[in-house]
Formats: sequence, C-alpha cells, structure tokens
Amino acid sequence: MRAVTIKDGTLRVEDHPDPEPGAGEVLVRVKAAGLNGADMMQRRGLYPAPPGWPQEIPGMEIAGEVAALGPGARRFAAGDRVMAIVGGGGQAELAVVHERELMPVPETLDWSAAGGLPEVFVTAHDALFTQAQLRPGEHLLVHGGAGGVGTAAIQLARAAGARVTATVRREQARAEVAALGAEAIAPEGFPGHGPFDVILELVGAPNMPENVTALALGGRVVVIGVSAGVKTELNLLALMAVRGRIHGSTLRARPLEEKALAARRLEHEVLPLFATGALRVPVAETFPLADVAAAYEAFAAGGKLGKIVLLIDQ
Amino acid sequence: MRAVTIKDGTLRVEDHPDPEPGAGEVLVRVKAAGLNGADMMQRRGLYPAPPGWPQEIPGMEIAGEVAALGPGARRFAAGDRVMAIVGGGGQAELAVVHERELMPVPETLDWSAAGGLPEVFVTAHDALFTQAQLRPGEHLLVHGGAGGVGTAAIQLARAAGARVTATVRREQARAEVAALGAEAIAPEGFPGHGPFDVILELVGAPNMPENVTALALGGRVVVIGVSAGVKTELNLLALMAVRGRIHGSTLRARPLEEKALAARRLEHEVLPLFATGALRVPVAETFPLADVAAAYEAFAAGGKLGKIVLLIDQ
Repeated sequence: MRAVTIKDGTLRVEDHPDPEPGAGEVLVRVKAAGLNGADMMQRRGLYPAPPGWPQEIPGMEIAGEVAALGPGARRFAAGDRVMAIVGGGGQAELAVVHERELMPVPETLDWSAAGGLPEVFVTAHDALFTQAQLRPGEHLLVHGGAGGVGTAAIQLARAAGARVTATVRREQARAEVAALGAEAIAPEGFPGHGPFDVILELVGAPNMPENVTALALGGRVVVIGVSAGVKTELNLLALMAVRGRIHGSTLRARPLEEKALAARRLEHEVLPLFATGALRVPVAETFPLADVAAAYEAFAAGGKLGKIVLLIDQ
Repeated sequence: MRAVTIKDGTLRVEDHPDPEPGAGEVLVRVKAAGLNGADMMQRRGLYPAPPGWPQEIPGMEIAGEVAALGPGARRFAAGDRVMAIVGGGGQAELAVVHERELMPVPETLDWSAAGGLPEVFVTAHDALFTQAQLRPGEHLLVHGGAGGVGTAAIQLARAAGARVTATVRREQARAEVAALGAEAIAPEGFPGHGPFDVILELVGAPNMPENVTALALGGRVVVIGVSAGVKTELNLLALMAVRGRIHGSTLRARPLEEKALAARRLEHEVLPLFATGALRVPVAETFPLADVAAAYEAFAAGGKLGKIVLLIDQ
C-alpha cells in the first residue's frame, strides 16, 4: 500500500507492506483521513504514536470501507462504511482498526466529512459531556472556537441545550463561528461575558488565571489544548470559592477499552444528530494523497474554518 | 442564653436573647460544640459567617438535645439527641437548625465525640466520595493527616477499602496516625510513595506541583485547606498526561439543600460505621463553656491529635 511517511521531518508517499487484521480487527480501505494539530507535532518529532501503532505513518482518524475481517470480527461486513480514531497510521491506503473502535458512517455524510469527523467530535464530546458533564441550560465558553475541536464543541453544546460563548482570534472567522450557534467574541475581556459553567480550554496557559475567576459556582475547566503555553499560576482559594474543577485530558494515549467506550458514546449520542442535520463537519479543503505536503502546509498556515482532509484512492 | 461572643478579636461568654425556631427548624439545647480552624480565622475577622447565621457567636458544629420544634418540623421529637454543621452560632447554650440539616447521634457516641464529629466527617466524606469519588482499592494520599479532617479522611477511606498514605509533620504524631490505618510519612519526598489515585490537600499551595506529578492515571486532587499558601504553579501538560482533575471545595458557604444532602449522605453511609466501632472521633481535650479562651488557645497551639470540644450546660 501507499502511505504518508515521516522521515526526519519530511513527508513522502511511500510503499509499505499491506497491514493484516488480527483477532477482532478490521482492515479498512481508507477513503479519507483528516489532519490534526497532533500530526504537525508528530512531524516535528514531538508527539510519537503510542506503542502498537505505526510510528512512521501519521494520521489519527480515518473513514473508509471494510476491506477484510480478522478472526472473530463480526460487527461489520465487507463494504460497510466505517470511521474511527486511530493511534497512528491513518494517512494510508489501508489501516487496521479493532472493530470496537469503529463507528458506522451516517448515510448523510460524504467521505470528506466522515474523514474529518472522528477526532474532533470524539474529543469535544468526551471533554464536554464525559469530563465536564455539561448540562442543558448551562453556559459554555470555548477558548479557540474557530478550530476543529472548537467548532465541534459549539455544535454539540448547542444541540444539547447549552448556551455557548466562543473566543475567536481572527475577526474574519467570527461570523462563521456565530453561524454555528455561539456568541463569537475577541479573546480579550472574555470574563465580562461570564460567569461560565464550563470552559473548554483549547489554547493554553495564558487564559487560566482568568478562567478560574470567570467560573460560575460548581464550574469546570477542561484543558485539552496548550499550544499557547503550559505553565500557569493557580489561585487555590479562587478555585475553592467557586467549588470549581480543572480537568486535564488527552485522547491519544488511552487504552482500547476507553477509546471503544468513547466511540460507543459517539454512536449513541452524536451520530443521530448528523443524520438529522443538527450537526455538520465543516471542511475547509481536501487534497489527494500525493499532495500531502501541500495539505500539511495548508493546515499549518491556518486561517480557514474547517478541516483539512486527505482523499485517498477514490 | 449564654454564648461565646467575638468582639474585636476577644472572646467572652455573654448573654444573648434565646433564638426561636422558625418553620421547619429545631431549637437545640447544645451539649457539645467542636472547635475548628475556621473559628480561629473568624476570631481574626477573616472568615465571617454566611448571611442568615449569627455573626458574633462562633461555632460551626453542635451536638445536643431537641428542646423545641418550629412549625412543621417533624423529623425529631423533644429530647432526641441530634448533631449538625451550622453556619455559625454553635458555641452557645441554644442554637436553631433546620431539621433537614440535623443528624441523629449514634447511641455509641458521648457528647464530646458527637460535638466534634459533624464538621470534619462531613468535610472529609464530601471531599473523598462526593467530589473525588474514591473507590475501593484506590490509593489515597492525605496531606495533613494529623488534623481533624485528616484523621476523619484516613478512617473513612480505610473503611471503604482504600489504601491510605498520610503526611504528618510532627514526628510524634505519626504513630497515632498510623494507628488509624494510614502509612504515616514525613511530608518531604511524598511522591516516592505514589502514584496516588486521590490526594486530599489540607495544607495548601506548596504541595501542588508535586501533587500533580504524583497522580496516577485518572487521579484527582481535592483542595480544601490552604493554610500554607494559596498561589501555586500548575503545569497543564502534566495534568493532561495523567488525565487528572483538581477540585477546590468549601462547605460553609453552601445553601441549605446542599448541606442537607451532605447530612443525608453522612447518615446513610457513615453513621452506621460509628455504631459498629469502625470509626471513632479522636478527642484531644474538652473545656467548659466558661473556659472558651483556654480552648481556643489549646486549638491554636496544636500539637495534639484529635478535636478540641466545648462542653456546655451538662
């Protein structure tokens, strides 16, 4: 098979042996693979794939057709449209995934949308509902509302009956983010729009001191992005005064059972909302596999709302 | 009635009008009232009672006999032995408490134990089980194991099947703390005894950076005491790496429904363990009401394991 290959920071498309599905696993003919911030870090050697996943081939999410079943796999049949988060190796013509980590692709979604769905929607759903336990009527603040996880979080929270405010640095993106259902504001002065029951922190340390003071009683901050900084000052008395919580979370390092559980939750609680049109996957641009370098450049350049997705073998 | 009275930082026993129970409230003839760190702060003008509670009369917990019932109160009858956390006014011959905040006193407990039970056991139970959701088999670290909340937390966690390590500054206290079921260690070098699933922080900021790195995967830190410092550095990436949580919490400012819920949980999950002898209230010293100044001095001096309790009108 052909696959994106990282060697010393450069991206090439190279031939690799076809992977073979083991017990309970499914071989997927990949049709689309979304790009994520973690791919950029992995390219720079900063964020290796967890053990057991391809190390040279990047790619954290896929959508495609079932090509073959390993021994004992029975959730899907050859030709079924499936998608999943993977630990690595997604940007390739073929990928092997445990059947418990796969989700069916809703009929209403084309390949580019399906290939850009798993990572950001599983991440946002896990952060908002499994971690922070966001409830209807609550007020959510999303720091970094124009990014992939941000746009997913805004839509999920709105669909669940929450009110959403989102900080968006680029002024041009605010109307697009507002169209997803959030009050889109500049990052400066966000506490004036609170208090917030839940704050989804996708930017990092600089927001944290004000995040804590902007919490409502019983409020929760979930930190899953720290590109703007890692170390922050925490005032414990301020956190106690609002009886607040700060969660740190990541998806990639989780074991099979937790990733499978997150996939089941998405199937049950989120995928029906794509079928009804309440949710959508904003796709900024697609690239063929051969143009992977251009795709990574477009991702790194930023400036557009929506996913960058590789389309493979169509 | 006679009551401890704080005026400009001095403690006196003075006459006050008898309080009268309103709708759903109970007049309690106080027999014992434990001292707490918050009383010391209140004496210095730093921690006023919440609105609606006596402001001049300190005292956050009581045990006594039901003296009279307000309109509609029906959970208890005159003469019943009861105890409660109160927002203030506990160090007095009479106190008024809503019947939903009262708990029955287990037969096995004398007045001094009952008067020193509510604050530390409700606080520890709320922090460990309602907030951190401590589970059997988990490893708990208590920072400040020789204090009132610390000794309650150690016993509660052991009774629930958790393993407990406790930091204790005074070397002389370590054997007493170990007798409660914890591995008692010096505060220095505590991370070498981890990783910990739950850390109960009763000391404050200085421990926090190492608390985060000493967490097990999915670990929780609950901060309810900050006498050693309020501001700390937080490494968000370290918190994300263990998918950890930091909770801040206090009891005193909570509304009636939350305090009542905490009392119901204690009745249901904890009081039966006093009846069987699995739990006990360590009492260091008791003082008559007239000697309240000496009682506060003994509390402030520290150095003894167990509660300081005022005995009233016996």
